Amino acid sequence: LVWNTNIKWSLPAVCFVWQLSMIILFGVFVRYNEESDTHWVDYRKENNITSDIENDYYFRYPSFQDVHVMIFVGFGFLMTFLKRYSFGAVGFNFLVAAFGIQWALLMQGWFHSLDYTDGKIKIGIENLINADFCVAGCLIAYGAVLGKVSPVQLLVMTLFGVTLFAVEEYIILNVLHAKDAGGSMVIHTFGAYYGLSISWVLYRPNLDKSKHLNGSVYHSDVFAMIGTLFLWMFWPSFNSAIADHGDGQHRAAINTYLALASTVLTTVAMSSLFEKTGKLDMVHIQNSTLAGGVAVGTAAEFMLSPYGSLIVGFFCGIISTLGYIYFSPFLEEKLKIQDTCGIHNLHAMPGVIGGIVGAISAAAATNTVYGDLGLENTFDFTGPFAKRVPTIQGGYQAAGLCVALCFGIGGGIFVGLVLKLPIWGDPADENCFDDEIYWECSSHPGLQQPHDPQQTCRHVSTGIKH
Amino acid sequence: LVWNTNIKWSLPAVCFVWQLSMIILFGVFVRYNEESDTHWVDYRKENNITSDIENDYYFRYPSFQDVHVMIFVGFGFLMTFLKRYSFGAVGFNFLVAAFGIQWALLMQGWFHSLDYTDGKIKIGIENLINADFCVAGCLIAYGAVLGKVSPVQLLVMTLFGVTLFAVEEYIILNVLHAKDAGGSMVIHTFGAYYGLSISWVLYRPNLDKSKHLNGSVYHSDVFAMIGTLFLWMFWPSFNSAIADHGDGQHRAAINTYLALASTVLTTVAMSSLFEKTGKLDMVHIQNSTLAGGVAVGTAAEFMLSPYGSLIVGFFCGIISTLGYIYFSPFLEEKLKIQDTCGIHNLHAMPGVIGGIVGAISAAAATNTVYGDLGLENTFDFTGPFAKRVPTIQGGYQAAGLCVALCFGIGGGIFVGLVLKLPIWGDPADENCFDDEIYWECSSHPGLQQPHDPQQTCRHVSTGIKH
Amino acid sequence: LVWNTNIKWSLPAVCFVWQLSMIILFGVFVRYNEESDTHWVDYRKENNITSDIENDYYFRYPSFQDVHVMIFVGFGFLMTFLKRYSFGAVGFNFLVAAFGIQWALLMQGWFHSLDYTDGKIKIGIENLINADFCVAGCLIAYGAVLGKVSPVQLLVMTLFGVTLFAVEEYIILNVLHAKDAGGSMVIHTFGAYYGLSISWVLYRPNLDKSKHLNGSVYHSDVFAMIGTLFLWMFWPSFNSAIADHGDGQHRAAINTYLALASTVLTTVAMSSLFEKTGKLDMVHIQNSTLAGGVAVGTAAEFMLSPYGSLIVGFFCGIISTLGYIYFSPFLEEKLKIQDTCGIHNLHAMPGVIGGIVGAISAAAATNTVYGDLGLENTFDFTGPFAKRVPTIQGGYQAAGLCVALCFGIGGGIFVGLVLKLPIWGDPADENCFDDEIYWECSSHPGLQQPHDPQQTCRHVSTGIKH
Repeated sequence: LVWNTNIKWSLPAVCFVWQLSMIILFGVFVRYNEESDTHWVDYRKENNITSDIENDYYFRYPSFQDVHVMIFVGFGFLMTFLKRYSFGAVGFNFLVAAFGIQWALLMQGWFHSLDYTDGKIKIGIENLINADFCVAGCLIAYGAVLGKVSPVQLLVMTLFGVTLFAVEEYIILNVLHAKDAGGSMVIHTFGAYYGLSISWVLYRPNLDKSKHLNGSVYHSDVFAMIGTLFLWMFWPSFNSAIADHGDGQHRAAINTYLALASTVLTTVAMSSLFEKTGKLDMVHIQNSTLAGGVAVGTAAEFMLSPYGSLIVGFFCGIISTLGYIYFSPFLEEKLKIQDTCGIHNLHAMPGVIGGIVGAISAAAATNTVYGDLGLENTFDFTGPFAKRVPTIQGGYQAAGLCVALCFGIGGGIFVGLVLKLPIWGDPADENCFDDEIYWECSSHPGLQQPHDPQQTCRHVSTGIKH
Repeated sequence: LVWNTNIKWSLPAVCFVWQLSMIILFGVFVRYNEESDTHWVDYRKENNITSDIENDYYFRYPSFQDVHVMIFVGFGFLMTFLKRYSFGAVGFNFLVAAFGIQWALLMQGWFHSLDYTDGKIKIGIENLINADFCVAGCLIAYGAVLGKVSPVQLLVMTLFGVTLFAVEEYIILNVLHAKDAGGSMVIHTFGAYYGLSISWVLYRPNLDKSKHLNGSVYHSDVFAMIGTLFLWMFWPSFNSAIADHGDGQHRAAINTYLALASTVLTTVAMSSLFEKTGKLDMVHIQNSTLAGGVAVGTAAEFMLSPYGSLIVGFFCGIISTLGYIYFSPFLEEKLKIQDTCGIHNLHAMPGVIGGIVGAISAAAATNTVYGDLGLENTFDFTGPFAKRVPTIQGGYQAAGLCVALCFGIGGGIFVGLVLKLPIWGDPADENCFDDEIYWECSSHPGLQQPHDPQQTCRHVSTGIKH
Repeated sequence: LVWNTNIKWSLPAVCFVWQLSMIILFGVFVRYNEESDTHWVDYRKENNITSDIENDYYFRYPSFQDVHVMIFVGFGFLMTFLKRYSFGAVGFNFLVAAFGIQWALLMQGWFHSLDYTDGKIKIGIENLINADFCVAGCLIAYGAVLGKVSPVQLLVMTLFGVTLFAVEEYIILNVLHAKDAGGSMVIHTFGAYYGLSISWVLYRPNLDKSKHLNGSVYHSDVFAMIGTLFLWMFWPSFNSAIADHGDGQHRAAINTYLALASTVLTTVAMSSLFEKTGKLDMVHIQNSTLAGGVAVGTAAEFMLSPYGSLIVGFFCGIISTLGYIYFSPFLEEKLKIQDTCGIHNLHAMPGVIGGIVGAISAAAATNTVYGDLGLENTFDFTGPFAKRVPTIQGGYQAAGLCVALCFGIGGGIFVGLVLKLPIWGDPADENCFDDEIYWECSSHPGLQQPHDPQQTCRHVSTGIKH
């Protein structure tokens, strides 16, 4: 047998058992919070809340749906650029995210939303957003191994990824009390190094056996632009979704909007400058244009100021595009990290930059710029952290970045070793990047002619193997 | 002549006459309501409304736009999976919905938004959402007859469908006082049986003459995923769009989010389990993953609890996928119902399940769980229904489901008979599922080479007929 | 050398220098406004604002994101209809818009958001929406020259276009005090005549050398429908995004929803009626269905009444479709205006109609219909304009339309002459509408077979030149 990809039993078993576990755990642990429970009507009266419009739902639902689109359409379609892996890109992205959000509600719930009076996790709209965020980390990691792993491996990656995420997030946000509204550290740095480490452990020396499929065709590049654009457009919602009500969300959206705009111009400039004939490369346009959104994540709700955001975007467009041109080949040849989507350029480097920008801008915060109340509100210098000052906060921000890196790399190596076990049905080297391995293709005999462009994946694939 | 599809006069005539009728009827009947009229500024003062943000527009507009995307992009692109019927899928969906929303504003307006002081229908954002909902019923029905009817027939289906919808909706929601926030009964059950009954009456014994076109190609399956994902992502908005302000909308979104996540896992499991080689089938991923959203529609604003939603989604993924594998062939061979998109599996069965779940969860509602005020608010036990109790409500919910079924089946048979008249320009059996019948294709001579993949629909079609 | 399209130095130079200029100008001029600054918390207290939900962010952010989607996905994908210019359509649209929104924030800021106390532009969510609007004017103009200009030319067009836009907008909205919520005059009329005038100056007598690429293929038409539908669905958000809080936004959304629905029916009717065989033409469905949204722009927040909106949409569907059938060929042959996307039919004529509808409906406004307060609020008859009456307002609206026309035509001729200089790297006549000129295509050797449908743009293009 050429490949050991028969997932007939393992995939259904994992899906059923894990979904049943979710039901049991939700039954034991998860309830509505006071804003999504029918007791809201009583809660409102008791707390003198004048209108239903002050339910957190109305502050966050529009951003939530934008984030939701980023997770399912954004990440899913961004990965459809491969000529014969669009089903796997969008389909496995769908599967992984649907499982991940459930597990994330539990894991994050235990750490952040546990009601100690009754031992229940109380969920509302903010939990849904955070679950989507948590899954984003795993989908970033998927980008590194796209086309080289089985759906069962992806589910395992997600199970561990969400778990690791919830712990590092707790350490960074709660223990260190670092701020990370858009998740440059918690989501992007962690997710990217998690995926790169897994890819390093799963290195395939003979991957060039399927290199004829490791590229795009005209229409697959257009499909990928759907992903790019929805990510790009909705990134202001991503970075502002869980920011503070009022000016916090408002400012995070503005900063992200500006950083992303700036990135587009420097990405185009670099793409043209470094190609022999001055032509643009779709890979850069699809990916590097997003780097500014990643890098402005941590500082999005800070008083980064509009030109500060533009500067962050400016450099990230340059660095990310250079990454695709010079660093990705280096990673593959020297460090033996095969990174299908180039997440090192889109998430890892910009994520680290974002963490650093966050640390610097936190350390530089002053009462003059923020106002006394504004400073306290923005950094939550209250309760046990009432005495913290901006310079100290900067140090904790930097510590948070280190935690994200350690969890990403350490967790990735561990999970990579687990995924190296020969039981997961991953494709052989010559079957990578090929939908035919995991997808039944609905071909009809009437159209099966040689060179027929409209034929289904089964036959194109067969054709290639001749 | 091979087909009687010349719609040169009938289609323009129907479009013009009906649109003119809409203008006249709107002129006579439709006005702005107090929240969309310039008198809002006076209304606010008179009613001590402290802020413009309490205008219903701000409670519902984000959900409205999500629903709008589901209707036009969601339904439209979901049906693009056929290899040569993408124009018809997305284009006729567009036409039908654009007509239907106007007619729905009138029909639903007469039943629900008539101001008896002046005999005018007063519309606001909630009417727009309800019009979109009403059209959803007709678009579901379109799924059963996709590729086999003319645009004129679709418009006739929509005219009658919207009319029937408004009546059954009035009976279910107002007379029986059943609750159906997400329309499991009113929209999905009605729409699906309406479409299946029409398809049954229009049965084509020789449809296999065009079976070479009754399937997908690689890129058409990717296009269809655009529809799937926008439906999936925005379904929480669909089920919460007209729910009660505050906790009602909040809870409906959470329940739907969870049910849909659960459905994805069991759909994948079943798809893999029941294919010989364990491969996944795009048909299931595109459709069955949505069944949980349908089935949680009625109970979405109830205290179904998070694990309850997961359970509903769990079973619907299984049932819907089994429907595609076993029930669709049975329907076609034994019951003579040709269901192009498998709406029986995506809307009919999950819709009925949704009605049943709604009835049970209403009957099981208690003051302990809901709170006294919460129970009254959620089920609107006020006015003439002040004395109704949950167990009785459960019975009325079940009655509502029966009404939806009767209207769907009865109305569908009647409309099917109307559409059987040989005057509507429907395609011959050998021309079904073919865009060339109704669409001018903008081919350019320069590209017309044999085997040219980039050729337009005219020539692929011609090629096939050789 | 066949073409002078080497943009290796000019494109990076323009991108870098302009982006650096943006950073410097933003550093000098742009700051957060009181609702996006950390001082919001103080501002709230001082102004007795009871809740964060009254931050303008929550009134406008959902509409902003819809508008953002229209700009990047809507305009971008609408232009992907060409068989070999999808990268250019969606990619250059992306580049141009990303630059334009930055320059627009500055230009519009100086005219509208300058804080005279400190000489800074103070930005918030409304500025982001207006920047997107401003860019829409330039993207409309791009439609006329699609496939015939270099990205550097597009950037130059945008630089001048945004500048002209800001001035005409200031004259129309501030000096004349005309109302134009949805920008029929300010955006569509200006943008369309700007683009048409440029195209007139850049007339290419030998453009038929690349006419084999000036058309669509099956899948490119489906991609274009993504653009059409997102524009169509979100147009109510476009026209209401900067309308007055409360009833203003509410009514603008309703009017636009209705006008667009009506347009779809008459577009379909005309498309079928004027094709020999009664078939529909995708060009009409993709474009003319949007004309109602353009034409209802100015009057969207007026008491146009629902049937008034339907009437506007009715006629615009007819006129726009007739434009594609009769007027576009006339424009090209007689007036020497080559209009790739037919913006004359989608934006110019409907924009002018919108201006006229706005003038008439403003002139016809009465206290009876609007209420005293409503009239004052809707037309802002306050401050220096406190004594203006509706009939006079109608006159100023008409004057506004003339200003938009003059700026569009005059500005377009000037910019066209600038773009005629032989330094911009525009494609030769035989290389128009071809992505290969400006895009590196990520082809892999494994797939380069004759007639291979999955090959990349490089090879298709080469094939065509044989």
